[in-house]
Amino acid sequence: MKIVYVVPGPMDDEEVKRRGELLKNWAFPGTDVEIVNVNEGPASIESMYEEYLSIPATAKVMFELERKGYDAAILGCAGDPGLDAMREITDKMLVLGPGQTSMIVGAALGHKFSVITIEETMIASTYELAFKAGVLDKLASVVSVAIPVLQLKLKKEKSLKKIIEAGIKAVKEDRADALVLGCMSMGFLDVAQEIEKAVGVPIVNPSKVGLKMAEAMVGSGLMHSKTAFATPTKISSRRVKDLDELYIRK
Amino acid sequence: MKIVYVVPGPMDDEEVKRRGELLKNWAFPGTDVEIVNVNEGPASIESMYEEYLSIPATAKVMFELERKGYDAAILGCAGDPGLDAMREITDKMLVLGPGQTSMIVGAALGHKFSVITIEETMIASTYELAFKAGVLDKLASVVSVAIPVLQLKLKKEKSLKKIIEAGIKAVKEDRADALVLGCMSMGFLDVAQEIEKAVGVPIVNPSKVGLKMAEAMVGSGLMHSKTAFATPTKISSRRVKDLDELYIRK
Amino acid sequence: MKIVYVVPGPMDDEEVKRRGELLKNWAFPGTDVEIVNVNEGPASIESMYEEYLSIPATAKVMFELERKGYDAAILGCAGDPGLDAMREITDKMLVLGPGQTSMIVGAALGHKFSVITIEETMIASTYELAFKAGVLDKLASVVSVAIPVLQLKLKKEKSLKKIIEAGIKAVKEDRADALVLGCMSMGFLDVAQEIEKAVGVPIVNPSKVGLKMAEAMVGSGLMHSKTAFATPTKISSRRVKDLDELYIRK
Amino acid sequence: MKIVYVVPGPMDDEEVKRRGELLKNWAFPGTDVEIVNVNEGPASIESMYEEYLSIPATAKVMFELERKGYDAAILGCAGDPGLDAMREITDKMLVLGPGQTSMIVGAALGHKFSVITIEETMIASTYELAFKAGVLDKLASVVSVAIPVLQLKLKKEKSLKKIIEAGIKAVKEDRADALVLGCMSMGFLDVAQEIEKAVGVPIVNPSKVGLKMAEAMVGSGLMHSKTAFATPTKISSRRVKDLDELYIRK
Amino acid sequence: MKIVYVVPGPMDDEEVKRRGELLKNWAFPGTDVEIVNVNEGPASIESMYEEYLSIPATAKVMFELERKGYDAAILGCAGDPGLDAMREITDKMLVLGPGQTSMIVGAALGHKFSVITIEETMIASTYELAFKAGVLDKLASVVSVAIPVLQLKLKKEKSLKKIIEAGIKAVKEDRADALVLGCMSMGFLDVAQEIEKAVGVPIVNPSKVGLKMAEAMVGSGLMHSKTAFATPTKISSRRVKDLDELYIRK
Amino acid sequence: MKIVYVVPGPMDDEEVKRRGELLKNWAFPGTDVEIVNVNEGPASIESMYEEYLSIPATAKVMFELERKGYDAAILGCAGDPGLDAMREITDKMLVLGPGQTSMIVGAALGHKFSVITIEETMIASTYELAFKAGVLDKLASVVSVAIPVLQLKLKKEKSLKKIIEAGIKAVKEDRADALVLGCMSMGFLDVAQEIEKAVGVPIVNPSKVGLKMAEAMVGSGLMHSKTAFATPTKISSRRVKDLDELYIRK
Repeated sequence: MKIVYVVPGPMDDEEVKRRGELLKNWAFPGTDVEIVNVNEGPASIESMYEEYLSIPATAKVMFELERKGYDAAILGCAGDPGLDAMREITDKMLVLGPGQTSMIVGAALGHKFSVITIEETMIASTYELAFKAGVLDKLASVVSVAIPVLQLKLKKEKSLKKIIEAGIKAVKEDRADALVLGCMSMGFLDVAQEIEKAVGVPIVNPSKVGLKMAEAMVGSGLMHSKTAFATPTKISSRRVKDLDELYIRK
Repeated sequence: MKIVYVVPGPMDDEEVKRRGELLKNWAFPGTDVEIVNVNEGPASIESMYEEYLSIPATAKVMFELERKGYDAAILGCAGDPGLDAMREITDKMLVLGPGQTSMIVGAALGHKFSVITIEETMIASTYELAFKAGVLDKLASVVSVAIPVLQLKLKKEKSLKKIIEAGIKAVKEDRADALVLGCMSMGFLDVAQEIEKAVGVPIVNPSKVGLKMAEAMVGSGLMHSKTAFATPTKISSRRVKDLDELYIRK
Repeated sequence: MKIVYVVPGPMDDEEVKRRGELLKNWAFPGTDVEIVNVNEGPASIESMYEEYLSIPATAKVMFELERKGYDAAILGCAGDPGLDAMREITDKMLVLGPGQTSMIVGAALGHKFSVITIEETMIASTYELAFKAGVLDKLASVVSVAIPVLQLKLKKEKSLKKIIEAGIKAVKEDRADALVLGCMSMGFLDVAQEIEKAVGVPIVNPSKVGLKMAEAMVGSGLMHSKTAFATPTKISSRRVKDLDELYIRK
Repeated sequence: MKIVYVVPGPMDDEEVKRRGELLKNWAFPGTDVEIVNVNEGPASIESMYEEYLSIPATAKVMFELERKGYDAAILGCAGDPGLDAMREITDKMLVLGPGQTSMIVGAALGHKFSVITIEETMIASTYELAFKAGVLDKLASVVSVAIPVLQLKLKKEKSLKKIIEAGIKAVKEDRADALVLGCMSMGFLDVAQEIEKAVGVPIVNPSKVGLKMAEAMVGSGLMHSKTAFATPTKISSRRVKDLDELYIRK
Repeated sequence: MKIVYVVPGPMDDEEVKRRGELLKNWAFPGTDVEIVNVNEGPASIESMYEEYLSIPATAKVMFELERKGYDAAILGCAGDPGLDAMREITDKMLVLGPGQTSMIVGAALGHKFSVITIEETMIASTYELAFKAGVLDKLASVVSVAIPVLQLKLKKEKSLKKIIEAGIKAVKEDRADALVLGCMSMGFLDVAQEIEKAVGVPIVNPSKVGLKMAEAMVGSGLMHSKTAFATPTKISSRRVKDLDELYIRK
Repeated sequence: MKIVYVVPGPMDDEEVKRRGELLKNWAFPGTDVEIVNVNEGPASIESMYEEYLSIPATAKVMFELERKGYDAAILGCAGDPGLDAMREITDKMLVLGPGQTSMIVGAALGHKFSVITIEETMIASTYELAFKAGVLDKLASVVSVAIPVLQLKLKKEKSLKKIIEAGIKAVKEDRADALVLGCMSMGFLDVAQEIEKAVGVPIVNPSKVGLKMAEAMVGSGLMHSKTAFATPTKISSRRVKDLDELYIRK
């Protein structure tokens, strides 16, 4: 099984490598997991504007990766930016969004789950993501730690402390039975176990769960539904001959 | 009051002019309405992929239009592509999406409304838009006429016939009390009255209603909420100095 | 365009005149707006019982106003008492309820909105109104200021202070992105701007927004749906010959 | 236990007597059940307009009945017109609406129930009633028989046939497990058993169930909640001295 | 009318007798109410595991009671354990669960109700029960008193105090208009009136309301729907000849 | 990783062996998967009554399997009978229900999914399961093939044909983007690929997906939440010393 993890924007090579190694460690024997980053886009994604900025270049990379024979791709941002578009332009390579995927796993562990997000400004779009995932009824709350993405790793101890505080609040006040980390950079801190120990409920790490769910779905022979995510009609009807022709200039 | 209607992609000049004139005819006395088209992007929007393709260039245009002193901008696609992003990067110019706006007007006219969309493939995203608009509970159905956007005007009579058939079906089978046209090109056919006569329920034309609602909201002194659509923190915190710096290349 | 604002009960002439002037100031050029009050009914509406008391006499006035050629009527109470009945007995004059209308505008400005109501006892019916408007999913909360309607104007400063406090609470605790004033007398205090400055989110004034939305809908050629609000069958089938015959005495 | 059934409008004495006798037959031993009709109001209730017309005079009768020592009153129309108002102005006499009451009983018998209503035009308000009753999630459908109320008894055989047809449709197509008759005149036809035999699911007769539920609730020592249905503040604060003073004339 | 109350597990004879006498006191004249306890099962039901443990033996007792000619049986646990199964294997004897039944009565008394449950661990299943009852939309909250069932009667004063505190919290913070006692042992303390006096909202005692509702439903000629709760096909098709044959050993 | 698949009732040894081999084929390298059957219980599960019958003996087996060191157990019935109880009495071994698990996977593949169930009588409980899984909003429909479980394998061709017909209906009429097979015996027919080819949307086989999801969750270090599924207090407080003591006889 060949899986590729796609960082939807530029990332420094060392961090790409570090994340790639974590993914390899997490993979089942028999899974070949690669990581790529898209060489243009936002430095990090902390607003809807940056989500949308990331999509066109990432979509092109996805389109090419399908041609390279990957069985599944993980869209490496917990906001799942443009997931529906990625699924529209692929038809053999399963594309998974770790945001929605983590939410359904969180939902499966108990009655209610909460999402810990980086910034207050991402709370509303997290509710919309839960609606798209179909598990809005089980979302106890979305709580934010107010740490910019690019600071998470630099200030790892402080970040961990804030995540734990936010998690305890969600469990106590909102009756969350499980917590979902709502940011891939949070996930790649690889601190789910510490948080679980401190908070006392299962912690869903989107970075790890995204991979394991991709393996499970490919292993189950499942592909995203082309009924739900139809190839754009200009392409399927051959009115245009490649993806680039969909974008025109006056 | 200065309002601008933004076509989120390239459109031939004649059609831009024709739509601009319709808008001027529809405007209240005292409203100054302009139309612009974004000079790059998809030829038409019939998939989520094309929605996303349209956003980055359109956002830049929106950003500049705010600086030109417009009171409100209408994002000229009934899918409201990137509306949240457009609202994040503006703070004095109200941005309205005609999709969500038409839905709430449709909801206000009766108990249930249906949306008539161009293609089967846009049905699911129309439900998501109704969720974002908050009126999912009143959405009776989404029905499609299976006509590509670019054919609507060329085959006006046939399109009108199909829209009327779809509308009658929605009223009879799904108990819609009002119909929302789910496409701006459908709206600019300016045939709402003919449809209403044939179907017997109010028809919400997103092209016209988008404008009138912009006038009503500006006239009410209302702006979209910056609590809901916060300026991206990299900008508000001055970590970057302009919009372009949010997009980097490796 | 001819619009009439109907106070659904007796009001002193001076206040009627003051409100009429505010409405004229708010109207677009080209809109002719009148105000009438119904000369019998409750002194103010602060319970469901008083809502119902206001309906029969107000309905008769509405029925006559349609015959006078008005394009739209605004039912001047934020509880929209008997809106469905008013719509049943009119078929050319659009009737708008400022309660539901303000709620859909509030919903369009952000993700969630709250309503500020006069009395604790009106909270439940406000939720029911949001259900009728179709935007219950976006209603963050209903908060009350516990001021009798007839005191609002007499104690304007105190009222303003309480409204601001309630608004801040709704934004902080319930995550409201916009506030809807849930009472016409609150609206005609004409203090939305002061509240907005103090609270920091858009304030929907039902008195002003009711008018602007009526203008927008009439300007869009829209009428409430007669499929949704059918003329009572005793009338449409000519079993009775006028409205009065519907009410019999033994 | 003393229960009174209130017909919210004028009804011919013979029919009042006939219904009163049915109620007495249905009552538990030990229950004293009376019937009264309000001597002014609509001849029958087939629109929201007629619902509202019935409320003021009926409310006054309710107010007086409480003073006469009744334990409970049944508001004799399946639309429950003004139920909240009736509950606001009573504080010792339980007031039950047979519409909402029948719905919760229908909900308790299976997974889904349907309501059979008289006219197409009452369908939407029946959904609103189910929302108020809190059982909207279990409402499979509302189907109409298109028979004016005043014809139900005159054309009993034809009515029965139409009700059975509508019921079979609701069970087959909408998966209703139980049917609620959505009209008191339908209920007093006393044909629930025939319908049940023909359709094969339990039939909730609002006329009978309204009485039995009143007996059950009074027998359980239960009164409607005054927290939910507070006495109008003008009365509770003694700003007015009786109900009539709430209605003023200019 | 013959009604039987079934304690779904072993209970000491004195307590069975005490409860039986309360039931007889509560019954309408003309109702013959008996109590039985199932002679094996959990000592009390405070977890889903114990709910399930109680079902097989209780179902057999129910099956036999139907043959003895009872009109209705009350499944004496507020979790309604196995109610759907009991209804599947009976077709003449109405089976009621006091949990769901109390919830719909609580819902009928106001806008929102809360349930007071014994243990924190029963909160989630109480929400599921409200979903099954169809009144989840009206459930304000579930609050727990953290008292083991078997302690409720031994420490009656302390229990009463805790119930009142929990009730006041539900009314103040969660806006409950009525309270439902979520445990039959709580109900048989027979302290609803004291709680009502202290909290100020109606208190639904499931022990009493279960009986009165059974009387009301039987009195209305209603049976649970066999469309909803079909007899297991192995029985209805006569593939097995009695209930015992459904359980096999290898 | 050690996973055990538990058939919650007696099954003939050959079929147990056949299923065990399929599971071994499906497992990732490194996963050790065993199958056991509970030696008493219902012959098959086609009603809620049979679901409940299966729980007590299955729970005991689960309890013992945890002691044997399994990382996860799959409760081998698509109705997930007693899943909450199984999770209450385990605290190191993850217990998964293939019903809910398949539903969340089906939800992740598109906008809407349908479940194909064996009998009409299981439809309502399938909706309840979707509610428990939190994905009710994405459930397009539940369709039944009306084949007794024990006939599925004997009449494999006919069953396959009926499943395909039901699937096509769900896709066409209910707009399902993916189908979930709602029965383990259906899953172990191992015909998902044939169905997918015929119907054209992804098919979720609960037998395979249950295993792959167990591997993914254990591989992610996740356990069901003990906040959600607390150990029964009689056990956690040591009031009883083993599981058997929870069941008493009079």
